[in-house]
Order: sequence, then C-alpha cells, then structure tokens
Amino acid sequence: MNAYPELSPSPRTIMTPGPVEVDPRVLRAMSYPILGQFDPEFTTLMNNTMAMLRELFQTGNQWAYPVDGTSRSGIEAVLTGLIEPGDRVLVPIYGRFGHLLVEIAERCGAEVSIIERPWGEVFDPQEVIDAIHREKPKLVAMVHGETSTGRLQPLADIGRACREADVLLAVDAVATIGGVPVESDAWFLDAVIGGTQKCLSVPSGMSPITYNERAERKILARKRVERGLRSGDADEIGTTGFRIQSNYLDLSQLQDYWSPARLNHHTEMTSMLYGLHEGLRILLAEGLAARFARHRLHEEALVVGLKAMELVLYGDPSCKLPVVTCVAIPDGIDGESVRSMLLHRFGIEIASSFGPLKGRIWRIGTMGYSCSRKNVLHTLGAFEAVLARHGLKLPAGEAVQAALDVYDRHGVPV
Amino acid sequence: MNAYPELSPSPRTIMTPGPVEVDPRVLRAMSYPILGQFDPEFTTLMNNTMAMLRELFQTGNQWAYPVDGTSRSGIEAVLTGLIEPGDRVLVPIYGRFGHLLVEIAERCGAEVSIIERPWGEVFDPQEVIDAIHREKPKLVAMVHGETSTGRLQPLADIGRACREADVLLAVDAVATIGGVPVESDAWFLDAVIGGTQKCLSVPSGMSPITYNERAERKILARKRVERGLRSGDADEIGTTGFRIQSNYLDLSQLQDYWSPARLNHHTEMTSMLYGLHEGLRILLAEGLAARFARHRLHEEALVVGLKAMELVLYGDPSCKLPVVTCVAIPDGIDGESVRSMLLHRFGIEIASSFGPLKGRIWRIGTMGYSCSRKNVLHTLGAFEAVLARHGLKLPAGEAVQAALDVYDRHGVPV
Repeated sequence: MNAYPELSPSPRTIMTPGPVEVDPRVLRAMSYPILGQFDPEFTTLMNNTMAMLRELFQTGNQWAYPVDGTSRSGIEAVLTGLIEPGDRVLVPIYGRFGHLLVEIAERCGAEVSIIERPWGEVFDPQEVIDAIHREKPKLVAMVHGETSTGRLQPLADIGRACREADVLLAVDAVATIGGVPVESDAWFLDAVIGGTQKCLSVPSGMSPITYNERAERKILARKRVERGLRSGDADEIGTTGFRIQSNYLDLSQLQDYWSPARLNHHTEMTSMLYGLHEGLRILLAEGLAARFARHRLHEEALVVGLKAMELVLYGDPSCKLPVVTCVAIPDGIDGESVRSMLLHRFGIEIASSFGPLKGRIWRIGTMGYSCSRKNVLHTLGAFEAVLARHGLKLPAGEAVQAALDVYDRHGVPV
Repeated sequence: MNAYPELSPSPRTIMTPGPVEVDPRVLRAMSYPILGQFDPEFTTLMNNTMAMLRELFQTGNQWAYPVDGTSRSGIEAVLTGLIEPGDRVLVPIYGRFGHLLVEIAERCGAEVSIIERPWGEVFDPQEVIDAIHREKPKLVAMVHGETSTGRLQPLADIGRACREADVLLAVDAVATIGGVPVESDAWFLDAVIGGTQKCLSVPSGMSPITYNERAERKILARKRVERGLRSGDADEIGTTGFRIQSNYLDLSQLQDYWSPARLNHHTEMTSMLYGLHEGLRILLAEGLAARFARHRLHEEALVVGLKAMELVLYGDPSCKLPVVTCVAIPDGIDGESVRSMLLHRFGIEIASSFGPLKGRIWRIGTMGYSCSRKNVLHTLGAFEAVLARHGLKLPAGEAVQAALDVYDRHGVPV
C-alpha cells in the first residue's frame, strides 16, 4: 500500500561539529501540537524567545530573534541587510567559512578585500586592525569559531578597533554560541549570527541573530514596506539606500514581524520555535558559565585520551576551538574507512574535512548535548578499537583510562 | 531558577488558511532522535522524500525537493533562480499573494508587467494568454490558490500557451498542494512551489518545490560553484548568465546538495525533513484522489452550514478555492470580537483578512488534518453560538443539522 518505509532512525552517538544530538526535552517540545502564528500564546513564546536570546548573546540589543532557515540563512540575512552594492567589505579568512562570507558578500554586490592566514592558525588581532586602517571598509565580516580547522579567533580587540573607526563588525558565531563565550556587547560586535544544531543542541532549522542600533540604522535606511501591506505611497519613498535584495531574508521586515506590530511576513516555524525555546530554557537553567566549563572539561578528557593513543592533534594549540578537536590521520590509515567502521559498527559519527584538509584530518565535535562524559568515553574506546582494527599500533587501553583520570581529577561524580 | 515558563500550548482547533493542525503522526516523527546529514540512513530519507514529492506534484521532473525555509523561501528560490536582472516578467494579480510575487520579482531586478482582476474573482485564461502575447515576458509568475480571497485560478490553458510561446511559468501552489489537484506536467507548469503548513499538515518550515528541464537550463546557465568548495578556476568560468543573487536560495547549489554528489551547502533540517517525510507518507497512503474528495466533502458541509445560518459567502462561487471559505461579516458585528471569543472560549481559530478585505470578511480554512467532520461540526456549532452572543439573529440550531445532512447523504460512517 505504501512503498516508503516508516521512519525509524538508528540511534547515533553524534560527535561531529554539527548537527549534534538533540536534547530529548527539545525533541519532546517539538512534538507538541501547534498554535496559530498570531495566537497570543504563540506571540508570548516569541517574546520569551527573544528575551532568552539576549541572555545567550550577552547583549542589551532590542533585536535578537531567529531567522527561519539554517545557519547560513542568518549569515545571508545579516550581510544582505548590511551590505549595499559597491560597499567595501573586509573578510579575514582562516578556514572554509571565511570563504562563505566572501561568497555571500560578493553576491550582495560588495567590493571585498581579503586577508588570509594559513589553515590551522588565526589572526593576531593587530593584523586585522592594520587591514581595517588600510582598506577602510564599511563592514568587517569574520568567523568566531572555524569548524573546518577547529580554531577560535579572539575578537575583543578587533571589535574595539572597528567601533573606533566607525566600521560595522558582523560575526559568524554559529559554531561557538552556547558552547564558548560570545560577548556581543563587551566585544563591540554589531551583528552576531548563531546556529541551533551545534552547541544549542536544537535541530538545524533556525539561525538566531542579534544586531545593535548601529546595524539597525543601516537596515532601516533601506526599508521598503511590502506591496499588498502598504498603507500608502509614503511607505515606499523617503528611503536613502539600495533596496535589500531579498524579501525572505529582509531584516527590516523580519524585525517588524518580531515587533509588537507583528506585521505579516512569513509563517513562523512553530515546531522549530518550540524547540529553540526549550533549548534556550535548558541552556539558561544550566547557566552560561557552567555550560562553557562543561565544554572545556569534556574537551580536556577527549584531548588527553587522543594523546594517550599517541595521535597527533592538528593546528596551533594556542587558538584551539574547545568544541572541535582535529586529529591528523596517521600515515597509512584510510580515514574514510575508519569513519565508516565507527558509524556502521559502533553507531558513532565523526567528521571528515574540507578543501586542503580533505583526507588529512578527522574532526571530532564535543558540542551541546553530545558533549558528555558518556559520549567521550564511548568514542575513545571505539576509536581505539577501530584504529587497532585498521592495523595501527597504539598503547592499548590507555585512552579511556587517561580520560577517566581527567574526570576523577575534576571530581565529576562516578 | 528559570524565569521562562515551560512550554505548554493550549489545545486548538485551527480552522485558518494555515498554519493548520499537524497530524500527530507527523509530530511523533519530528520527535525522533536525529541522524547526521550525510549519514546513509538520512540521505536515503532525502531520496525517498524526493520520490514522494514527485507523486505529490504529479510530475516526472528529476528535481523535486524542499527548500529549507517557510513557503516564501521556496517562492524566492524559484524566482531568484529564474529571473535575471532586466528580464520581463508578467504577474497576473487577483489577491495579496500576487503582490508578493511582484515584490520578489522586482527585488530580482525584473521588469514586471502586471494585470489585475478585482479581489474575489480570477482570470479568464484568455485574458492572461492575450497579455503574454502582448507583453512577451520571459516568465509568467502566478498564484494557483489565493488564500487572501479564497479563489482558485485554472492554469491548464495558461500553461499550454506559455509552452507554445516558449515562456516559463512559475506557480505558487502553497495553498493548494495536497488539498486540490496540482498537475505540474499535464498543465505544463515549469516550476511549482508548495508549502507544508497548509494541506500537507506538517509544521511551517519547508517549502517543497519542483521544476523541469526548461527551468533547470536557465538555472544552470547562471551556476557558480561556491568559494571554498571549488576544484579549480574552471568552476567559476564558462557561465553565461548573471550570478544568482542569493547563496542560501541558489537552486543550482541546492540541486547539487540533493543530487548523489551531495555537494555541501546548508545543514539539512533533520526534524523538519522527518515531518515532511511522514506527512507525505500519510498523504500517499490516503491517496491523492481520496484526499481531494475529502477536502471537497468537508467544504460542502461547512458551506451548507454557514448558509443555513443565513451568512453570505464572499467572492465569485464559480472559482471558489475548496480549502478556504470566506464569509462576509454581517453589518453591525465586530469581526475581531467574534474571532476573539471563538479563540478564548472555544479554542477555535479562524482568520481575519488583508488589505481591502480587512474587517469585511472572515476566512475559514478546511485544510489537511484540520479538514475533518469533527472540526467542521465543532466550528459550526461554536460559530453560531458566538454570533448569537454578539446579538445576530439567526436560525438557531440549523447549521449543524444541515452539515450532518451532508455527511449522512455522503454515507460517511456515523
């Protein structure tokens, strides 16, 4: 009668840099019956979600809400709102997702200047600041945590320099938000883009963003009220900038929808919002400081375990991203065969890599709900077994013992 | 400890033109643990979803997949892929969502010609065909079912005329897909956009689309491989058209992601895809013909009941959209007060309206899972009680009896 089999996903231990395992309380929330988008109960949920996002982004900004799409929809919404054709934009690149910022900025009509660091490193902030003074961009767009290389870029000094030079700074914090401190106001970030499917442990599908009044001024100068909702010609004239080229990702319209005016735009994603709302409640109940410490602890246990296997970590350790650990694939080992055996025999997923690192490193995530003692210990044990099965000589049994030592030392309950 | 209350949405009978109630089996599917996006189990689900979408769209097209956003993301993805700056585009408008097509087409740089019918009517196909011959557009974009006015536009003759004139035809079938026949191939539709939150009864969050080889040729002529994924300069050159202005909604990239190559783009929305997959399974198990007949039956019962209350329906009955029924608000009755009492006392949501119809009509949806005998009978009984409470004189008790008569006549089991 029905040729398509019933959904029955196998259980997985997901140790990639995203998407990662979803907290079961979030999954439960997503299975609740829906409310209409203008139901007062639903608009209350929208407002509470905005309030919780302000805490997550550590900001006093009025605007903090999700864009209805995956993380790159949030990036594109911010860039297409802040970049007018011909604007000079500076993108410091130190991995794959810097290239994505260039890609999107170019499609917005920007004149993009690039500075690059070799993959595995990040920028000395002064290098970016010098480029700002040299290139005089209207906007700097850069990545906070590069999952492609497992690096973390310090931003506070760059933020201060941008503010002093009256340059806007937009930051891709998709990989870091909820797992590593992102201090939007203290670091002078004008716009920040987060993701749901990494350290928040909500399924992919929304991109929480925040932006301040400096960014909002640029957006409002380009505002048009949508045809069919206009109250008169006045809504169309009196603007100074180029019209925003997307309707779906137009922040001037999205903020009207998220404002008390609730000006109709899209139909808000009810079940995704339920999930984000619950994910944020869980995050705030844990507390930001405790959550960041948890990510540090399990990273330490994982790293110590990998080193006990005599594996070599990739990249400059001084700028390691706590939530992604990159491991050099040992000579003579087929990285994809290792990943495949981990997935099909042990139900554990780790990631491969992109571009110049393809075939050279594995990437192991410790994010959100996946960032747990259980998962780290299972992964180390399975990884050792699979590497041994592939003929790698390693000190048998050491990895898990080393990780257990870390947990014992930190006094985590047995 | 946590200032934000636990999620606990009140039960609702949702009789709007969307979002409507979600089938509990879909909600259950959305609560399953996630798989990684390149997990073979997940890519199998993606392929099965494409196969089911082909059946839904009644097409042999290779490309049928969801865009990861709400319905208007699908509309924008299709238009931004098919429209190059300077292209002539014809938009026949007979309600609010025709204006949205103009809005988006203009942001794509189109030179838009408009023809309009008064709200409450649709076009005689010959009127559109004459405009095609006069305006010689590259693309015609139009709405199949207008929820703002509750009208259904016949498309087969327009499709044939477009094909003969070698004009592309893109159709917004967001309101009709899964509730009313949409025959993509038989009607010569080059691109069709659907929605999830209406007759499919899946939460808002994805927009299933399909397009044929004629549309694909236009898209591929504009293709660029993303920076950071390129294998060489060759990926960037050799194209003829203007680059597609969105990265997130770039169909040339999305189809690579949905192809066996699985070229990395966004992170697919796992839980939304689970929901869509289950919604499509339920739809195909019911069968398209049976599903369309169900929507006709409950529309009939609703309409007969409303007329038995001596209410007046809005719009030309010859082109009524089966899944939306528009009711003129009687003189002296406050439409918003009626809606509010229905929601707060009876837990039933019906819709208000837009633009010139604001305050003049209510809109009652009978879509997907909400389109049931239970819901129609509850709504008629509650509506009568609320109108009486607002002082309207009407034949008490007749509405529900008239609807029961319809069900008895059709032999629906008691």
